[in-house]
Amino acid sequence: MHKVVQNITRADPTLIAKLGAAGVATVHEAQGRTGLMAAKMRPIYPGAALAGSAVTISAPPGDNWMVHVAIEQLQDGDVLVLAPTSPSTDGYFGDLLATSARARGCRGLIIDAGVRDVKDLAAMHFPVWSAAIHAQGTVKETLGSVNVPVVCAGALVNPGDIIIADDDGVCVVPHDTVFAVVEAAEKRLAAEEDKRQRLAAGELGLDIYGMRGRLAEKGLVYE
Amino acid sequence: MHKVVQNITRADPTLIAKLGAAGVATVHEAQGRTGLMAAKMRPIYPGAALAGSAVTISAPPGDNWMVHVAIEQLQDGDVLVLAPTSPSTDGYFGDLLATSARARGCRGLIIDAGVRDVKDLAAMHFPVWSAAIHAQGTVKETLGSVNVPVVCAGALVNPGDIIIADDDGVCVVPHDTVFAVVEAAEKRLAAEEDKRQRLAAGELGLDIYGMRGRLAEKGLVYE
Amino acid sequence: MHKVVQNITRADPTLIAKLGAAGVATVHEAQGRTGLMAAKMRPIYPGAALAGSAVTISAPPGDNWMVHVAIEQLQDGDVLVLAPTSPSTDGYFGDLLATSARARGCRGLIIDAGVRDVKDLAAMHFPVWSAAIHAQGTVKETLGSVNVPVVCAGALVNPGDIIIADDDGVCVVPHDTVFAVVEAAEKRLAAEEDKRQRLAAGELGLDIYGMRGRLAEKGLVYE
Amino acid sequence: MHKVVQNITRADPTLIAKLGAAGVATVHEAQGRTGLMAAKMRPIYPGAALAGSAVTISAPPGDNWMVHVAIEQLQDGDVLVLAPTSPSTDGYFGDLLATSARARGCRGLIIDAGVRDVKDLAAMHFPVWSAAIHAQGTVKETLGSVNVPVVCAGALVNPGDIIIADDDGVCVVPHDTVFAVVEAAEKRLAAEEDKRQRLAAGELGLDIYGMRGRLAEKGLVYE
Amino acid sequence: MHKVVQNITRADPTLIAKLGAAGVATVHEAQGRTGLMAAKMRPIYPGAALAGSAVTISAPPGDNWMVHVAIEQLQDGDVLVLAPTSPSTDGYFGDLLATSARARGCRGLIIDAGVRDVKDLAAMHFPVWSAAIHAQGTVKETLGSVNVPVVCAGALVNPGDIIIADDDGVCVVPHDTVFAVVEAAEKRLAAEEDKRQRLAAGELGLDIYGMRGRLAEKGLVYE
Amino acid sequence: MHKVVQNITRADPTLIAKLGAAGVATVHEAQGRTGLMAAKMRPIYPGAALAGSAVTISAPPGDNWMVHVAIEQLQDGDVLVLAPTSPSTDGYFGDLLATSARARGCRGLIIDAGVRDVKDLAAMHFPVWSAAIHAQGTVKETLGSVNVPVVCAGALVNPGDIIIADDDGVCVVPHDTVFAVVEAAEKRLAAEEDKRQRLAAGELGLDIYGMRGRLAEKGLVYE
Repeated sequence: MHKVVQNITRADPTLIAKLGAAGVATVHEAQGRTGLMAAKMRPIYPGAALAGSAVTISAPPGDNWMVHVAIEQLQDGDVLVLAPTSPSTDGYFGDLLATSARARGCRGLIIDAGVRDVKDLAAMHFPVWSAAIHAQGTVKETLGSVNVPVVCAGALVNPGDIIIADDDGVCVVPHDTVFAVVEAAEKRLAAEEDKRQRLAAGELGLDIYGMRGRLAEKGLVYE
Repeated sequence: MHKVVQNITRADPTLIAKLGAAGVATVHEAQGRTGLMAAKMRPIYPGAALAGSAVTISAPPGDNWMVHVAIEQLQDGDVLVLAPTSPSTDGYFGDLLATSARARGCRGLIIDAGVRDVKDLAAMHFPVWSAAIHAQGTVKETLGSVNVPVVCAGALVNPGDIIIADDDGVCVVPHDTVFAVVEAAEKRLAAEEDKRQRLAAGELGLDIYGMRGRLAEKGLVYE
Repeated sequence: MHKVVQNITRADPTLIAKLGAAGVATVHEAQGRTGLMAAKMRPIYPGAALAGSAVTISAPPGDNWMVHVAIEQLQDGDVLVLAPTSPSTDGYFGDLLATSARARGCRGLIIDAGVRDVKDLAAMHFPVWSAAIHAQGTVKETLGSVNVPVVCAGALVNPGDIIIADDDGVCVVPHDTVFAVVEAAEKRLAAEEDKRQRLAAGELGLDIYGMRGRLAEKGLVYE
Repeated sequence: MHKVVQNITRADPTLIAKLGAAGVATVHEAQGRTGLMAAKMRPIYPGAALAGSAVTISAPPGDNWMVHVAIEQLQDGDVLVLAPTSPSTDGYFGDLLATSARARGCRGLIIDAGVRDVKDLAAMHFPVWSAAIHAQGTVKETLGSVNVPVVCAGALVNPGDIIIADDDGVCVVPHDTVFAVVEAAEKRLAAEEDKRQRLAAGELGLDIYGMRGRLAEKGLVYE
Repeated sequence: MHKVVQNITRADPTLIAKLGAAGVATVHEAQGRTGLMAAKMRPIYPGAALAGSAVTISAPPGDNWMVHVAIEQLQDGDVLVLAPTSPSTDGYFGDLLATSARARGCRGLIIDAGVRDVKDLAAMHFPVWSAAIHAQGTVKETLGSVNVPVVCAGALVNPGDIIIADDDGVCVVPHDTVFAVVEAAEKRLAAEEDKRQRLAAGELGLDIYGMRGRLAEKGLVYE
Repeated sequence: MHKVVQNITRADPTLIAKLGAAGVATVHEAQGRTGLMAAKMRPIYPGAALAGSAVTISAPPGDNWMVHVAIEQLQDGDVLVLAPTSPSTDGYFGDLLATSARARGCRGLIIDAGVRDVKDLAAMHFPVWSAAIHAQGTVKETLGSVNVPVVCAGALVNPGDIIIADDDGVCVVPHDTVFAVVEAAEKRLAAEEDKRQRLAAGELGLDIYGMRGRLAEKGLVYE
C-alpha cells in the first residue's frame, strides 16, 4: 500500500521556465481558473518564487520520515509537495532537510503543514510555501508514499505536474497540459500590457471592455 | 435595487490628513474606541498607510464587476472599500485595477476578501488591506452597488466616511464627526508625549495614573 | 484571589543566553519536544528573537490594567507573558507600555491576544509574539494576577520559567530543568553541524541515519 | 457616549408575525438577498424559531452589565440583540437572565458571543442564536449602550428592526421596509408552492425556469 | 471548458449497500485509511446516513446554476457532490432542489458549502452533509461542470465513485476498488465483534493485541 | 521520558457527585471563574453530563496507542482526558475503546482531538466532549504518557483532578480545592434560587443587585 514511484514524467524545462515567468495569477487564469491551492498557503519570506516539477509526498500527521525517502527521488529542477494524511501544523521540514534537498537539485517546498528554521531557510533562499510556521518536532515511525497523486491544500497534484509559486500563492499545472497553458499565458500577458497602458492613461475598464451596455441591461441604476 | 450613487459628501482634506497623521490606534481611541475593522484585515506590505474618503462597493462573492464601476466614481484622495455580500477570499483586485484606480486618484484599497499581484502592488506602493491574498480569479456577471452603506470586516462604512489604515489595521470615521475626532486625537497625542518621557525615565504607570488606591480597593493582594 | 507574587526564582542568565543562542527549534527538541506555544503566536517583525525570564500576567479579556501592575515586577532580562482569561484579540499593549517595560529592563512580550503600535514597536526593536495585531483599545476595570502559573497559547508557564522566542515561535523551559536542557541543546547543535556538511555534500539522510532497513521491514515498496 | 435610548419605533406585530411565518430564507430573498447574519450564528436547540423587534446591546468583551440595563427596556414581543465591541465567546447570558427577560415579554436572544445554561434555556424553550456555547463568566464593570445601531455578526441592526431567526440562521429586516418585505415574501411563497409540485412530479428546473437556451449560449457542452 | 458528462460508470448496487452497512469509519479503515472528507463536513440532522454513486458538480462561489443541470443527470441511487471553485458558505441548496433531486432518485447531498431550509430537509429525511448552514441566496449566472473530477472537502471524487456518509462524516470509495473494499470491510467487522465481546468482559487491549512487549521496548516506564 | 504514573490521588466521590450536580457554569463561577476548557469542546450528544476523576493522556498527533495504556489505569468513576502533543482532529476513540473503558468503570472521555463511531457512543450513553468528530484512523507507533499533567483545550489538568462536563462545556477542579469549591457552589445555587423567583416575578436585576447608582456614576445616560 505504501510505495515510492521512481519513474515520473517531467515537463520540458523551457516550458516550466515560461510558466514561472508568467507567475501564479496569470497561469491560473490561463488554465481556466483552476489549479490554485488554498489561500492559507503562504511563502515564508516575501519575494519567494519558483517553478518546477512536483515530487509528491503523502505523509502521516507529525511524521516526516517520508521526506527523507522523497529526497532520494529528486532531480534537478524538482519541487517537493507534501500533503499530510490528516490536518497538521507540525514542523516537518527545517534547514537540514533543505540542505539535503538542495544538494539534490530541489527548488523549494510546498507543504500543507508546518516548517521550522525559517530564518535559516530564508538566509539560504530556499523558498517554502506552508500552511504554518511551527517548531513542533516530528517522528519517523509510520510509512507514507512518494510520487503518488495527493490533494494538497485543496488542489490535486500528480507527480511531475508543474508547480508555480510566488507571493500570490501556489498553482498546479497538469504536466500533459503544459504546452497549451504556456500559450494561453503568453497571450494573456501580451494583452495585459496594452490594457495597462490605457488604464494608466486614465481610460476606464468600463470603456475598454465595453461594459456599459451590459450593466444597463442587467438593471444598474445611476443616481 | 442595484445602484451607483454618484454624489457623495467627502470630508475636508486637511482634516483627513490630520487623522492620517494621528494613525489608527489614536483615531480609534479618540472616537471612543469605535470604528475598527476586524483584526483579519492586514496590509499587504509593512509600513503601508493611508487616509482618504471611502468609495464603497457591495459586490457578490467571486465577482469583481463593480470594481470597474466604482473606479469611475473615484476622485483624488479616495479609498476603495469593498465588502462582499457573502464570505469570499477570491482575488478581486490586482495590478491592472490598481493602475486604473491610481490614474483616478485612488489612495488604496480596503477589501474584506482577497487580492492578487501583491508583489506588483507593493512595487507600485499601492496599499491594500485585505482578509486574504489569493490569485483566485473572479467573474463579471452579477450586479452589486457602489456608494451605498456597507458592513466591511465588522465595521459600518458610509460613502464619504474617512478611512485611516496603517500597520495596526483599519479604522472608519463617520464623515460628520471628523472635526471632533481630529480635536480629540490631537489632544491625545499631546498627552501621550509627556507620558512617554516619564515612562522612559522609569516612572511607573501605577504612579503616573494614580492606580494604586483603586487596585487595593478592588482587593489586589501583594505577596 | 487576585494577587501579585513579588519574589520569583529566575534562572542563571548565562544559561538563559545559551538557550537563546540555541533557538526555539533546538530547545524544543532538547527537552523532548515539549514547551511550544501554538503556531498562531507570531513575531510582529521578522528576525525578532529573545531569551529571558517570564513575568506572567493573567488578565481579563479586553482589560490591560494588570500590565501596569506587572511592569513594576520586572527585572533586567525579564519577558512579559500575558494570557487572557478568555479569548481576546484586543490590543493590550502599545508603544507607551513598551517604553515603560523597557525602562525596567524588559526584553519583550509574549501575548495570546493582540498588540498595537506595531510600527513603533518594530522601530524600537521591542520584540512581541502575539496571536493578533489589532488597535482595539482596552479598559482598566477588572483585576487579574501577576506571577501566577498561566496557560499561554497552549503552554503552561510558571513565573521565572525561561522563554525562548524567534521566527519559529515561542518555547517555554521550566526553570528547574534549564541546566539539563542547555546540555542537551548544545549536544544537539554539535551533532547537527556534522550532518549538515554531509547532507550538503549530497549524502542522503536515508544512509546517514541508516533508515533503509527499517523502511523495508515496515513494507515500503519501490516501483 | 454610553447611553440607553428608551423610545424606539417597533413595527406592526401582524407584519412581524407574517415575516416569522415566512422564515429566514424566504425573508432574506424577499429583501434582495440582504440582512443575513454570518453562518456562525446557530440556534442552541433544533427547531428554535422567533420573530420580534430588536432591542440592541453594544457590550464590552466579557462584560454583561448592559444586559441588565436592556431588560428594563424590553416590551412584549421584543428580541435582545447583543454585539460585543470586540470578539468574545464568553457566556454573557444564562437561565437567570432568560427568566428575567421572559418576565418582560422577551422572545429570545441573538448574540455574537457565548451563552451558558443551554440545557435550562432549551427546557424553558427560550431560543438563542449564538456564536458559541461557553460557561465562561463575565463581569459588570464597563458601560456599553442600549438601543443604538450595532453590527451583529456582520449585519447592521437598528433598534426596532425586525429579527427573524430559525434553523437557517438570523435575518434582519429594517423596520421601515417591513411592509414591502412582507408582500414580496408572500408572493415568493405562493410561487414556490406551484414549483414544488411540478418538481415533485419529476419536471426539471431546467425546463420550468427555461434555462437550456442560456446555458447553451454561455457555452455549456454535453458529452 | 465547461461540460456535462452524461455517461458515467456506477458500481454494483449490492456492493454499495454493503459499504453503507459497514459505515464510514469501517470503510475508511478498510481502504487503508484513505478517502475521508474533512471534519468540517457534518450531517444536518443526527442519524443521517447514505450510500450511493457520486454525481459531481463543480460550481462557482455563490452560484447554484449547475445544481439544476446536475439533477437531470441523476439516476436512482445517486448522491450529489458539490465542490465550489473557491471557498463559500452560501446556501446553494434548499427544499425545492431536494424535492426535484428526490424525484429523480437522489439519496442525498454532499456539499463543501452551505445549505438552507434545513428544517424542511430534515422533515423530508433528505440527508445532507455540508460545511455550513446558511440562508444566503445564490445566483444563476456562471457555468461550472457536471460529472468531472472534483476535490470536495479535501477528498478527490470522480463521478461514479461511491459515497458513504453517516454521523462520523463522509468517505469516498473509488468505483474500481469497490469489490476489494467490501471484502476488507466485512473482514474487519467480523474481527471487531469478537474483540468487542472480550473488551466488554474487561479484557485489556494491551493483552488482546499483545502490546506490552513493544511498549517496553520503546521505553515506556511504569511508576 | 514517557511514563505511566500508576498511583494518583482521587477526590472523595461524594464531593465529586456534588460538583456534578452543580454543573459546569456554577462550578466554574464557584472557583473564581477558572478551570474552563475552550468553547470548541462540545458533547457528541445533547444532555451528556459527567463528573469524575481525571486519568490523563498525553498522546502524539494521530496515534492512539496510549489510550490502551490508560484504560488499564482506570478505576470506577474515572474520566479519560486526552491532550494531543500537537493539534489533531483525528478519531482517536470509537466504540471498541468505549466498550473497554466502560468495562473498567470509565464515565466518559474529554479529548482535544476527534472521535468516531459517535452514533454507537450515543447509543451506549458513553459521553464524550471533543474538538471534532472525524472517522480518521490513527496508528500505534509512538509513545506518550499517562497520568502526567497536561494542557487540554487551554486548561491545565493534573491526574486526579475533578472533571465536570455538561452541555455548557468542560470544567476542571484541582483535586486539592474540591471541598472549598463544593461549599462555594452550593452557596451559589442557594442564592440563585431566590433570585430566579424574584426575576420570574418581573423584578429587575437593576434593582435586585442595586446597580442603578453605579451605572449613573460611571456616566450612563438615559435618553
